[in-house]
Amino acid sequence: MGLLYKNLKKVGKPPGAIIYTGEDKSRPIKMEVIYYNENQISKEVVSSLDSINWESSYNKWINIYGLNDTELIKEIGSKNNISSLILEDIAHIGQRPKIEFYDNYIFIVLKMLSFDNKRMKIQHEQISFILLPDTLITFQEVEGDVFDPVRKRIFQSKGLIKKKGVDYLLYCLIDSIVDQNFILLDQIEEKIEIIEEDIINNQSKKLLENIYKLRKELLILKSSVWPVKDIIYNLLKEDSVINDDTKEYLKDVNDHLIQIMDFIIIYREMISSLFDTHLSHTSNKMNQIMTMLTIFSAIFIPLTFLAGVYGMNFQYIPELSYRWSYPIFWFICIVTVVSMYTFFKYKKWL
Amino acid sequence: MGLLYKNLKKVGKPPGAIIYTGEDKSRPIKMEVIYYNENQISKEVVSSLDSINWESSYNKWINIYGLNDTELIKEIGSKNNISSLILEDIAHIGQRPKIEFYDNYIFIVLKMLSFDNKRMKIQHEQISFILLPDTLITFQEVEGDVFDPVRKRIFQSKGLIKKKGVDYLLYCLIDSIVDQNFILLDQIEEKIEIIEEDIINNQSKKLLENIYKLRKELLILKSSVWPVKDIIYNLLKEDSVINDDTKEYLKDVNDHLIQIMDFIIIYREMISSLFDTHLSHTSNKMNQIMTMLTIFSAIFIPLTFLAGVYGMNFQYIPELSYRWSYPIFWFICIVTVVSMYTFFKYKKWL
Amino acid sequence: MGLLYKNLKKVGKPPGAIIYTGEDKSRPIKMEVIYYNENQISKEVVSSLDSINWESSYNKWINIYGLNDTELIKEIGSKNNISSLILEDIAHIGQRPKIEFYDNYIFIVLKMLSFDNKRMKIQHEQISFILLPDTLITFQEVEGDVFDPVRKRIFQSKGLIKKKGVDYLLYCLIDSIVDQNFILLDQIEEKIEIIEEDIINNQSKKLLENIYKLRKELLILKSSVWPVKDIIYNLLKEDSVINDDTKEYLKDVNDHLIQIMDFIIIYREMISSLFDTHLSHTSNKMNQIMTMLTIFSAIFIPLTFLAGVYGMNFQYIPELSYRWSYPIFWFICIVTVVSMYTFFKYKKWL
Amino acid sequence: MGLLYKNLKKVGKPPGAIIYTGEDKSRPIKMEVIYYNENQISKEVVSSLDSINWESSYNKWINIYGLNDTELIKEIGSKNNISSLILEDIAHIGQRPKIEFYDNYIFIVLKMLSFDNKRMKIQHEQISFILLPDTLITFQEVEGDVFDPVRKRIFQSKGLIKKKGVDYLLYCLIDSIVDQNFILLDQIEEKIEIIEEDIINNQSKKLLENIYKLRKELLILKSSVWPVKDIIYNLLKEDSVINDDTKEYLKDVNDHLIQIMDFIIIYREMISSLFDTHLSHTSNKMNQIMTMLTIFSAIFIPLTFLAGVYGMNFQYIPELSYRWSYPIFWFICIVTVVSMYTFFKYKKWL
Amino acid sequence: MGLLYKNLKKVGKPPGAIIYTGEDKSRPIKMEVIYYNENQISKEVVSSLDSINWESSYNKWINIYGLNDTELIKEIGSKNNISSLILEDIAHIGQRPKIEFYDNYIFIVLKMLSFDNKRMKIQHEQISFILLPDTLITFQEVEGDVFDPVRKRIFQSKGLIKKKGVDYLLYCLIDSIVDQNFILLDQIEEKIEIIEEDIINNQSKKLLENIYKLRKELLILKSSVWPVKDIIYNLLKEDSVINDDTKEYLKDVNDHLIQIMDFIIIYREMISSLFDTHLSHTSNKMNQIMTMLTIFSAIFIPLTFLAGVYGMNFQYIPELSYRWSYPIFWFICIVTVVSMYTFFKYKKWL
Ligand SMILES: [Mg+2]
Ligand SMILES: [Mg+2]
Ligand SMILES: [Mg+2]
Ligand SMILES: [Mg+2]
Ligand SMILES: [Mg+2]
Ligand SMILES: [Mg+2]
Ligand SMILES: [Mg+2]
Ligand SMILES: [Mg+2]
Ligand SMILES: [Mg+2]
Ligand SMILES: [Mg+2]
Ligand SMILES: [Mg+2]
Ligand SMILES: [Mg+2]
Ligand SMILES: [Mg+2]
Ligand SMILES: [Mg+2]
Ligand SMILES: [Mg+2]
Ligand SMILES: [Mg+2]
Ligand SMILES: [Mg+2]
Ligand SMILES: [Mg+2]
Ligand SMILES: [Mg+2]
Ligand SMILES: [Mg+2]
Ligand SMILES: [Mg+2]
Ligand SMILES: [Mg+2]
Ligand SMILES: [Mg+2]
Ligand SMILES: [Mg+2]
Ligand SMILES: [Mg+2]
Ligand SMILES: [Mg+2]
Ligand SMILES: [Mg+2]
Ligand SMILES: [Mg+2]
Ligand SMILES: [Mg+2]
Ligand SMILES: [Mg+2]
Ligand SMILES: [Mg+2]
Repeated sequence: MGLLYKNLKKVGKPPGAIIYTGEDKSRPIKMEVIYYNENQISKEVVSSLDSINWESSYNKWINIYGLNDTELIKEIGSKNNISSLILEDIAHIGQRPKIEFYDNYIFIVLKMLSFDNKRMKIQHEQISFILLPDTLITFQEVEGDVFDPVRKRIFQSKGLIKKKGVDYLLYCLIDSIVDQNFILLDQIEEKIEIIEEDIINNQSKKLLENIYKLRKELLILKSSVWPVKDIIYNLLKEDSVINDDTKEYLKDVNDHLIQIMDFIIIYREMISSLFDTHLSHTSNKMNQIMTMLTIFSAIFIPLTFLAGVYGMNFQYIPELSYRWSYPIFWFICIVTVVSMYTFFKYKKWL
Repeated sequence: MGLLYKNLKKVGKPPGAIIYTGEDKSRPIKMEVIYYNENQISKEVVSSLDSINWESSYNKWINIYGLNDTELIKEIGSKNNISSLILEDIAHIGQRPKIEFYDNYIFIVLKMLSFDNKRMKIQHEQISFILLPDTLITFQEVEGDVFDPVRKRIFQSKGLIKKKGVDYLLYCLIDSIVDQNFILLDQIEEKIEIIEEDIINNQSKKLLENIYKLRKELLILKSSVWPVKDIIYNLLKEDSVINDDTKEYLKDVNDHLIQIMDFIIIYREMISSLFDTHLSHTSNKMNQIMTMLTIFSAIFIPLTFLAGVYGMNFQYIPELSYRWSYPIFWFICIVTVVSMYTFFKYKKWL
Repeated sequence: MGLLYKNLKKVGKPPGAIIYTGEDKSRPIKMEVIYYNENQISKEVVSSLDSINWESSYNKWINIYGLNDTELIKEIGSKNNISSLILEDIAHIGQRPKIEFYDNYIFIVLKMLSFDNKRMKIQHEQISFILLPDTLITFQEVEGDVFDPVRKRIFQSKGLIKKKGVDYLLYCLIDSIVDQNFILLDQIEEKIEIIEEDIINNQSKKLLENIYKLRKELLILKSSVWPVKDIIYNLLKEDSVINDDTKEYLKDVNDHLIQIMDFIIIYREMISSLFDTHLSHTSNKMNQIMTMLTIFSAIFIPLTFLAGVYGMNFQYIPELSYRWSYPIFWFICIVTVVSMYTFFKYKKWL
Repeated sequence: MGLLYKNLKKVGKPPGAIIYTGEDKSRPIKMEVIYYNENQISKEVVSSLDSINWESSYNKWINIYGLNDTELIKEIGSKNNISSLILEDIAHIGQRPKIEFYDNYIFIVLKMLSFDNKRMKIQHEQISFILLPDTLITFQEVEGDVFDPVRKRIFQSKGLIKKKGVDYLLYCLIDSIVDQNFILLDQIEEKIEIIEEDIINNQSKKLLENIYKLRKELLILKSSVWPVKDIIYNLLKEDSVINDDTKEYLKDVNDHLIQIMDFIIIYREMISSLFDTHLSHTSNKMNQIMTMLTIFSAIFIPLTFLAGVYGMNFQYIPELSYRWSYPIFWFICIVTVVSMYTFFKYKKWL
Repeated sequence: MGLLYKNLKKVGKPPGAIIYTGEDKSRPIKMEVIYYNENQISKEVVSSLDSINWESSYNKWINIYGLNDTELIKEIGSKNNISSLILEDIAHIGQRPKIEFYDNYIFIVLKMLSFDNKRMKIQHEQISFILLPDTLITFQEVEGDVFDPVRKRIFQSKGLIKKKGVDYLLYCLIDSIVDQNFILLDQIEEKIEIIEEDIINNQSKKLLENIYKLRKELLILKSSVWPVKDIIYNLLKEDSVINDDTKEYLKDVNDHLIQIMDFIIIYREMISSLFDTHLSHTSNKMNQIMTMLTIFSAIFIPLTFLAGVYGMNFQYIPELSYRWSYPIFWFICIVTVVSMYTFFKYKKWL
């Protein structure tokens, strides 16, 4: 399946048409709501939006697994007065990472990445955030995410999260997603190290294919990571919803993001440089092979000719009957070999 | 025909000279007018400008197929007070995409692209927009465009278009053109995948030619897509004609455009990286071939020499009459083969 | 002659030293003056500055062919109060394109380019403009320029030029020079197409030399075209001499210039990509050649060895007297050829 | 160990979690305090924070070796009111170089670099600075740094340092760290020179590996040096803590930094150009080898065939019994050799 | 000696430590003073600073050859109230080009370049300027500079210099230094032309080495020339010391500088493109060689085999006694040669 198949499904559709562009359209939806304030905390798994206490004075984190139920997305939209363009972006998993500011909410799209080691492919799961006053809604495609450490911190009494607003929760989740890239990059680095060793050990099976795949994945990774810089920059500029306190933490995320971008650049150049090294290795090896062939040929071709000469059946070849011809022939052979050897030594071919 | 032939026709002409720079100068013109407001809608195909109700209070979309009737373009210009420089650009199909703001209208040039799969060539059709109050005029070279879904939405009662002004109609058409690029890129991606497989399967016929053609088409594609970013940026800055509402939708187009630009960059780098892979593949294969040649030569050339030696007709070769010479000869041959094989194994050539 | 010889002549000279840095220092000067207003027009070829009616209320276009008469340039300078640094730039034909604004005039240097098809070299002729109120003075090195269509339009009654000021005339001339690049680029494109075909047809004579020459010429072309963008940008910002009307036309030139820059970039990348294709073509062909050599060797070298074995003169070779030895030998040869052929087919070398 | 292992330890941790991400977690901490003013100076090695006279009116430089005692870092933080995010960065040695301004202090992270000549690897030691009023605290991982010349200058009566505030001390330390890069770059240049000579002398053992390693180290070096530009820029803009006087000195550091960045760029391009040279060298050598093989083959293969012909055992070969056949055979051989030699000379292969 | 040896001497030194970082520390200092105003002019060679009439109302140009007498530099500094950081930069010949503005003076560092044709190396001599009111002090390392045309113009009555202030003198000297680059670039262009011819004539001795050297020198040249753009930009912005008049002249220098930068870029790309051409040339030549080898082998290897077959000593080979065997053998040989020749012609290998 191409990189674009998600986007193709949207061509010709009117704006605001909420269409799930993913694969499995029958997957059941799951909704998880966490209510918390400084002192109390509770978690509920609900099956309908009506079971959610929207008016609760607690901070609320509503996490929705599954985007195929577009009716549900619409309902959430109308309950919270969300633009249909935003709802469309939530269901369209080919959306690029971005941030949008509306009067009553902030909308963020990010990619949760993981590395499929066998297929040497980065897996993308789209995650959308709607930050409302006191409420953070997150949408993801399938169950399972990188937020477990955050959940644990909420339920631990000592964590900061409970004391702070949902903007701090948003920071925590973004931080988890960004930090996930370190794990991804570490796996890519491992692959690069395998390639490094393969080049040194001359094991070129799949080498080129792996270099090409890594190049391709880093290209796609780049297009998922670069826009995040812009998202954080815009959050840091925001003035009403994001507290100054939270901004200090967002700067920390920014710090990590810059490092991740640095590493992507470094890995891209390392792979390009590894490719060059492989190419040069190949031509060095060819040189070695051809040198061996040439030395063998240069030594034996003239001698074989000489042997051929005295294998001729001319009646009048005086050397044939000469007593010392055969020893002299071997002497010539040895002299030839030695002088050729000396010549190649001098030429530094040996 | 070169890339520049359209521009060459304009050299030496005075500014404002309305010259059709396309091919078929005898093609009949077709004009299609759609009148619509929130409640009503009608469509007419007219043959002269006088048949158009310019003063109607309805929103009007006047779509003109064919640019060869420069008199008609002039007439439209004078009816709506359009600068002759703009009229010139409409008829000159080598115009690059751009936007221009005048007191009473906005002028936009875009390229409607499609991929000719067989010739591996992108087809360009120029489309110009004049956005007047309540009226949008579009000019294209031949009948057939990517606007059918938009037309359908106008005639459907539920669509948003009827409720909104012509600025929203303009957005819908630009969106259609931009989205068309996803289809184009998908076809390019298919070509890239074919090249990927050809490299793996060693089917190098036309491979280099196809890589070169794709590179060239992506270069030209780039020069058609990049200026659109500027056009949308300028529409978003515009303050009087484009409603804030429509701008939200234009941001959505911008989103798609950025993705398209990302993909063009990714595909360019993938092709460049595929080229590198092919080059390296070729030299790996050469290594394999030369290794085989060298091994064959290294084994048989010395043995052939030895056979040649005992084919010599010298009278005094003691080995010739020796009883075990022949078996010893074969023994030497076998030892040579085995030791060469071991040597090449050790050298990792086998 | 190097690229720098014109600049070398200026080293060590004081500023404002008016030195003609071109070749032919004895060429006679020719001056052509066109007086025009909305209603009347006249053209004179004059031999001295005194024959020019400087005080005429008509618009004046004074066109001077030949820069070797530095005394004349000085005289024009003192008559019109032109800085000696400007006069120096007019006579120094290695000046790069630029614009300079003075209180009473605007000074522009441009390059009029043409393509010498045989030598595959771009010819540069420097042209300088001094825009005074009601007077435009142009300086060029030799007779013959790209302004004939403009001259024709002045003398035609219907042209716009006569109705407008000398700023519009300046626009017309700049437009002619910029449009000339389309013709130049078209010739370069033709050369590129020849190279494309040469690569496909394996006709590599002069191929590398031509690629190198085109690369070099495009580099130099780039340095002549890029500064023009800056010149037009500055003219568009100018507030007193260039009418708003003329600026609309200058934007049209800008449009063309951007297209020209786009094409230069495209052609540069196409040539670079053609070079890559040629390189890869060469190594593919080498692969083919080496495969043939290896196949021949792999088949015949062992067989020749076998023939050599039975050409040996050992007294005790039992096979020699065996009745079916010869047919068996041929049978072994055929088996070897067939199995080698199968092996190479399997390896996809054939 | 990968480049990322330090960062991986931080994934999933809450913000402000002070975790030492280095290797040796049991290393004892050492604290060195220097109190100085214009007239007096004293140095103490203390074992607990209580032994430090925090309220002293002297300038204080507190230098801490070892980051594994995170309790100590926390204590310093609470004594001086430092944000826990900062304390986290101090202990996390994978932090990228940066500056952060707080109301009561400035925080800077830098990398102290040295070159491990044998492993051809740059060693990074992270150093953090907290600039408080009258107090500068520095944190480093292990004992031993590049500050000895600064310490010497403090204890010498003539030095400027004693007369100035801790902002000047900060400058001195940053200057030492930046200048250290010159030593690093000099060692890299030496390696480049060794590679240059190896290419000329055809000693390609480890050549490719060394080129690859240098490329990689320069990439990593780049990501350590580039952010320093930003740090100094921000210090120069700071308005309350850094004296104008000190800024003059910081501009001097900036000067050196720009030179270092220039050299990194130059070395990167030199290595890339050396790689190209090596590649071309290899293919030139191959040409030489193949030319030799071809010449040998072209001369002897036809002659060996001729010898083979007259080694055939056909009964009716008239030449066999001809008296002068053998001398004529040798004559043909000599003519062939001479004409081949002339041909290759003419082709410039010899 | 590496590129960095000058900078290494400064590591660990306190700021403002005036250390001569050049080679010859015993060279005698020479001071040359020119006093001039509109009407009068005199030149003195002095041996001590006291012999200079600092209070003279004339314009003064004090030119100092030799930087090893750091005491002298210190004395000049204290006489004119120059910062010790500036004095340090004057003596440190590894300083990069820069400008610094102080209340009472402007400080500029430039590089005077020349090309050592034999060693293919650019020679750098550092020159520093201190522009005081009515006085310009220049420091250079050794006697001999590019200022002789300026000196001549001062002493000629007609020159502008005498009538203008020392800011104009500063311009003249900067102009001389910048113009010197044209001569340098011309010599580099000559080297490039030699390489072009060497590639065409297949004379590859030292070719790669020369390409590498030129690349390296252009890299270093770039880092000497690029900062000058910034220096002139800052002089043009300066408001009190540099007269508007002089700024017109500085714009002329800027003009030349841009051209020089253009040429450096062009030469860099030309060399890179020449390298590519050489690489491709080499592989074309290899193709030619291998084609020859393959043709020879393909023709003679089968024939030699056939000759070998009939050289076998089997008792029962019917052909041996057949009357026409030998002529038929030759016939087969000729047919083989002709058909191979036709085949290779068809394959376009011949
Ligand atoms: Mg759509
Ligand atoms: Mg999930
Ligand atoms: Mg983080
Ligand atoms: Mg991107
Ligand atoms: Mg941090
Ligand atoms: Mg590469
Ligand atoms: Mg690289
Ligand atoms: Mg025109
Ligand atoms: Mg159409
Ligand atoms: Mg769209
Ligand atoms: Mg959207
Ligand atoms: Mg690439
Ligand atoms: Mg000059
Ligand atoms: Mg001319
Ligand atoms: Mg034009
Ligand atoms: Mg340029
Ligand atoms: Mg136009
Ligand atoms: Mg390329
Ligand atoms: Mg964290
Ligand atoms: Mg340390
Ligand atoms: Mg320093
Ligand atoms: Mg970086
Ligand atoms: Mg300094
Ligand atoms: Mg660069
Ligand atoms: Mg390179
Ligand atoms: Mg220092
Ligand atoms: Mg000197
Ligand atoms: Mg100059
Ligand atoms: Mg630089
Ligand atoms: Mg000038
Ligand atoms: Mg190149």
